[in-house]
Amino acid sequence: MSRANNPNLKSWVEVKPGSDFPIQNLPFGMFMTSQMTSRAGVAIGEYILDLAVIAEAGLFDGIKFDKKDLSRPLLNWFIGSGKKVTTAVRERVSDLLNADNDELRDNAELKAKALVKQSEAQMLMPVRIPNYTDFYSSKEHATNVGIMFRDPANALLPNWKHLPVGYHGRASSIVVSGTPIHRPKGQTKADDATAPSFGPSKLLDFELEMAFITGKDIELGESISTAKAEDYIFGMVLFNDWSARDIQKWEYVPLGPFLAKNFGSTISPWIVTLEALEPFRVETPMQEPEVLPYLKFEGKKNFDINLEVEIIPKNGKGKVVSRSNFKYMYWNMAQQLAHHTVNGCNICVGDLYASGTISGPTPDSYGSMLEISWQGKKPIQMPDGTERKFILDNDTVTMRGWCEKDGVRIGFGECSGKILPAI
Amino acid sequence: MSRANNPNLKSWVEVKPGSDFPIQNLPFGMFMTSQMTSRAGVAIGEYILDLAVIAEAGLFDGIKFDKKDLSRPLLNWFIGSGKKVTTAVRERVSDLLNADNDELRDNAELKAKALVKQSEAQMLMPVRIPNYTDFYSSKEHATNVGIMFRDPANALLPNWKHLPVGYHGRASSIVVSGTPIHRPKGQTKADDATAPSFGPSKLLDFELEMAFITGKDIELGESISTAKAEDYIFGMVLFNDWSARDIQKWEYVPLGPFLAKNFGSTISPWIVTLEALEPFRVETPMQEPEVLPYLKFEGKKNFDINLEVEIIPKNGKGKVVSRSNFKYMYWNMAQQLAHHTVNGCNICVGDLYASGTISGPTPDSYGSMLEISWQGKKPIQMPDGTERKFILDNDTVTMRGWCEKDGVRIGFGECSGKILPAI
Repeated sequence: MSRANNPNLKSWVEVKPGSDFPIQNLPFGMFMTSQMTSRAGVAIGEYILDLAVIAEAGLFDGIKFDKKDLSRPLLNWFIGSGKKVTTAVRERVSDLLNADNDELRDNAELKAKALVKQSEAQMLMPVRIPNYTDFYSSKEHATNVGIMFRDPANALLPNWKHLPVGYHGRASSIVVSGTPIHRPKGQTKADDATAPSFGPSKLLDFELEMAFITGKDIELGESISTAKAEDYIFGMVLFNDWSARDIQKWEYVPLGPFLAKNFGSTISPWIVTLEALEPFRVETPMQEPEVLPYLKFEGKKNFDINLEVEIIPKNGKGKVVSRSNFKYMYWNMAQQLAHHTVNGCNICVGDLYASGTISGPTPDSYGSMLEISWQGKKPIQMPDGTERKFILDNDTVTMRGWCEKDGVRIGFGECSGKILPAI
Repeated sequence: MSRANNPNLKSWVEVKPGSDFPIQNLPFGMFMTSQMTSRAGVAIGEYILDLAVIAEAGLFDGIKFDKKDLSRPLLNWFIGSGKKVTTAVRERVSDLLNADNDELRDNAELKAKALVKQSEAQMLMPVRIPNYTDFYSSKEHATNVGIMFRDPANALLPNWKHLPVGYHGRASSIVVSGTPIHRPKGQTKADDATAPSFGPSKLLDFELEMAFITGKDIELGESISTAKAEDYIFGMVLFNDWSARDIQKWEYVPLGPFLAKNFGSTISPWIVTLEALEPFRVETPMQEPEVLPYLKFEGKKNFDINLEVEIIPKNGKGKVVSRSNFKYMYWNMAQQLAHHTVNGCNICVGDLYASGTISGPTPDSYGSMLEISWQGKKPIQMPDGTERKFILDNDTVTMRGWCEKDGVRIGFGECSGKILPAI
């Protein structure tokens, strides 16, 4: 366990109770302000530590890497320099922000330059995403979908418990939290219609997911074992896999979802490192039947991360419609990466691998409106008296995630997106 | 029609009869030699014209663009400068290579530097591919697959004639012609087995496809009409969508192909511009039932491009196993791009959009071994006495494509890949 995870650490930067970003977290992101171009930063309390400024001041001189990587428009170069570097930077930042350390604390001029208020910064896409894969690894979600669309008696398809089902998604339409998305238009066909019709989606949904970002390449033909997989994972973000259910239903056979998904997906801007999540490891749920040898693993590979989804209508009175947890995942990230590469598929720095919708065992923990409203049959009552079966125009969907233990809260910030009317 | 397409043009560079690269073609690619780092080139006969050298010599001074784009490691920057620039460069190259033009012809020193023998060059990936989409636009192929795997009486699924079915593929595992690919390993399940097993794919196949590369971005939320779509298409390549049929069969429900495809896909290195293909336009096959308004189009949007696939075993005695044509495509590229963006999905310079397997109406024009051998029931006899149901280790699969009219042959060169044993 990194010394940066010590629950007793305190920072000289004020961190309010309940903050997602205590000194034990130190997630990485890209930001800009009205005065500054894009640069790498680390979140601390209500501030961002500007890593480019810290590097310029020579405070990373003890760590061997190209300091320019912190001023590039995306984190790929920095992340690609390897865990040895990124972990050393996180630990150095932890030292610099430590209440007992005077290097930055007592340098008023540098401190003023290096600490930027989050409220005055614009968060940017943290990485260029060469490839995006979406898994389907929550048994509860796959079961719910199977019951609704196929056969309640055989809700899970025969392959589901043998391999982490996944598919490729659109990398270029992934946007950072806060970016509004227009309701997609497309073809849909009512069950009793003879031909499809065209128009704005009527069944627009969120999908509560998390995603991991890889920090290390492998070449075509190579594979990653479950034992080594976590060496390739830099960190995690929240992920909203927006889905147009009516478009999906008509288009997805036989090659999978396409326009129902690729109009936009939203990620949270802060990448929480796997190292920061270390104290929150838990067991993966029992896998039965036994998996093939390349999918076997040892140790605790799931993470106890609380998740919630709030729908906030135009008037601002929101409602939390789902409380779930990343620990429910049937297939863990190590298995996902081992499966993805067992055929020799290559992996790139910055790739994004999403979990699939994370549903828990009870209706209040389901991770999509499709499941929460059970195909629209059980609408949700909103505080303003309206109801929701799916997402309406001008609704904002905000996801949050956090771990909590020994008085330390490691949070992910928000993954938020507003749906604008169709163009 | 560009003046560079004039069938009467002759070059001072020797172009042998049957060459894919007469002066009317002038496709763009990236190459390197033992002496030179990667740079942009244009194919002419058995040579490559080094565009970086031509730019350095000032011969592109009349065209306004960043000449450094021709020395960058990929064509994205050059292509992204727009059709006005790329067309002007193609026309300028046509003038420079014209038998009547002495600028380069009579400059022995420059000529020696600017003309590189293809046999002495290594072709590279022409573009970075931000997104890769594979369509499924051949009616004959979709029908054959439907007959084999689903219901012969209803071979085409209900959505097939209403929209160009497509899905996202893996961008990072697309390699340039000549790159060997290892047979993938993965999970398969025999129909009578109770559980899946693991090992090298036994049903490795090619898919004869073509792909277009986009040269212009659109932002999230924007759409491209069929009328404007071709403005966004820079050019085309041959594409082999290698497929492991046994892995595919077990994994693909419900989210589509994944590990059965992403172990590698091969493209030809020369991007033939849409302008060079202009004389070979033909009508799109009759579309019945009528398509929705956003998929309607005017004019000739298909292209008459002859295609063939040869399997060459280790001993070198090859056999052409398929002769097909790009003109069979039911859905044309303009419709594919209009459909892809009708929901607001963004498009990036360098994106690759593949056609799906291009099968013709007769068995000798089928575009995959799955169809040619009809699931292995009709093996192909090879010249050496062996037979092929699917692709064996150390087989090379070579695809070729060319248009021919008025004594002019516009060729694509080769898209070739050797299958090495599983690792």
